[in-house]
Amino acid sequence: MKKKKKVNAAILIIGNEILSGRTKDKNIAFISNWLNLNCGITVLEVRIIPDVEKTIVETVKILSKKFDYVFTTGGIGPTHDDITAQSIAKAFKVKYEYQKEAYKILERYYGKKFFNEGRKKMSKMPKNSKLIYNPSSAAPGFMIKNVLSLPGVPSILNSMIENCKPYLVKGSKIYSKTLNVFTVESTISKELDSLQRKFLKTVDIGSYPFFRLGKVGVSIVTRSTSIKQLSKVRKDLIKIAKSKKIKILKL
Amino acid sequence: MKKKKKVNAAILIIGNEILSGRTKDKNIAFISNWLNLNCGITVLEVRIIPDVEKTIVETVKILSKKFDYVFTTGGIGPTHDDITAQSIAKAFKVKYEYQKEAYKILERYYGKKFFNEGRKKMSKMPKNSKLIYNPSSAAPGFMIKNVLSLPGVPSILNSMIENCKPYLVKGSKIYSKTLNVFTVESTISKELDSLQRKFLKTVDIGSYPFFRLGKVGVSIVTRSTSIKQLSKVRKDLIKIAKSKKIKILKL
Repeated sequence: MKKKKKVNAAILIIGNEILSGRTKDKNIAFISNWLNLNCGITVLEVRIIPDVEKTIVETVKILSKKFDYVFTTGGIGPTHDDITAQSIAKAFKVKYEYQKEAYKILERYYGKKFFNEGRKKMSKMPKNSKLIYNPSSAAPGFMIKNVLSLPGVPSILNSMIENCKPYLVKGSKIYSKTLNVFTVESTISKELDSLQRKFLKTVDIGSYPFFRLGKVGVSIVTRSTSIKQLSKVRKDLIKIAKSKKIKILKL
Repeated sequence: MKKKKKVNAAILIIGNEILSGRTKDKNIAFISNWLNLNCGITVLEVRIIPDVEKTIVETVKILSKKFDYVFTTGGIGPTHDDITAQSIAKAFKVKYEYQKEAYKILERYYGKKFFNEGRKKMSKMPKNSKLIYNPSSAAPGFMIKNVLSLPGVPSILNSMIENCKPYLVKGSKIYSKTLNVFTVESTISKELDSLQRKFLKTVDIGSYPFFRLGKVGVSIVTRSTSIKQLSKVRKDLIKIAKSKKIKILKL
């Protein structure tokens, strides 16, 4: 059997607006899904922190040691509260300086006349950063060591994510199968527990209540790097449902 | 001048389904807004972690030391992947046992005949937990030390949040005013920087691009415990906009 390669990541959302509840985050689910589907990378932790330099520096240090990759979002715009780039430079003890290519890209995009201080700031990065190109609004993200920094605006982030791909080592794809059954969790909790023990090392089984057209049900989500193991679990799940006369939702 | 009291909190989202991107979180913004508006409590950090005991134990220990309150969501249901209560018991080195009142509530709710193992599990909590009553689906949340544990299903969580209030020490309310202007961030970034420096200790100024009916703009969000300071900043902001001939969006 081929050895499965596990690659993991953390997401670090930087921004008071998300913490305060003013803005609902849209980037976590997007990045996590994209990494999983396109790169076989599993997100194992997310943190949301304020625009405070000390906090960003400390958190970047911790997460970059703990995980294979760290994706940051937010704080790379032109205003005073955009301090992600300078904070990451501090975390890695490198200079925070103009990145020549980014400077050129932005100067060309805005034109010399309109290339003001705020816009120039967007080309300042930790020394030796690699660029993550931005096809929608020019200002690039950057990668330094294992940290990739993206903007917070979801539409811009979405347009850039493909440009992260060349920098990432891929892991084994994680497959997922869901079985939706019309019952409540407590009816099948014992059986699910036994099933999880049986497939402890190969399949991850999650159980999530749902409400659909006035009926309650449970989504049983199984995840694994092996399709074969997933199929085995599915067969067992269908057996459990049948033995308890539980209806399966066909989608 | 009355001293302003700052009370803070962290939110800990426990659940593989949020990390994997399968489910979009709806609880962070809700809890943060509720705490801010109703209790004057500011959320300073959010973490999302998997249903892994070791990770939950470690994270609860760290966050409960660092912040006045910790709100956890998820992992208090009847199935094998619901391990929040037992993990918090481990974090605080107390027994994980049936909470008598919770047991009675659930037995009454389901009836003796249908009060099976999975349902009984929902009344197991860290020793000496206080209950957070659940008006929608009976199974209570709990509070131990400065940690309050709520379920992950948003509608149930929303129905319970008011029952956290008696346990919380209130802080000074944080007021927020937003000025929406039709310009791009880089046009006003210098002025916003100066303004933030002027009000460094009393007002927090954030700048967020928006797109509205095909026009781009910037939401300038100001936050403070002092309405007076907010009004001063607003006057300055309007002056800046006028001097630059920037249109203000009237809502």
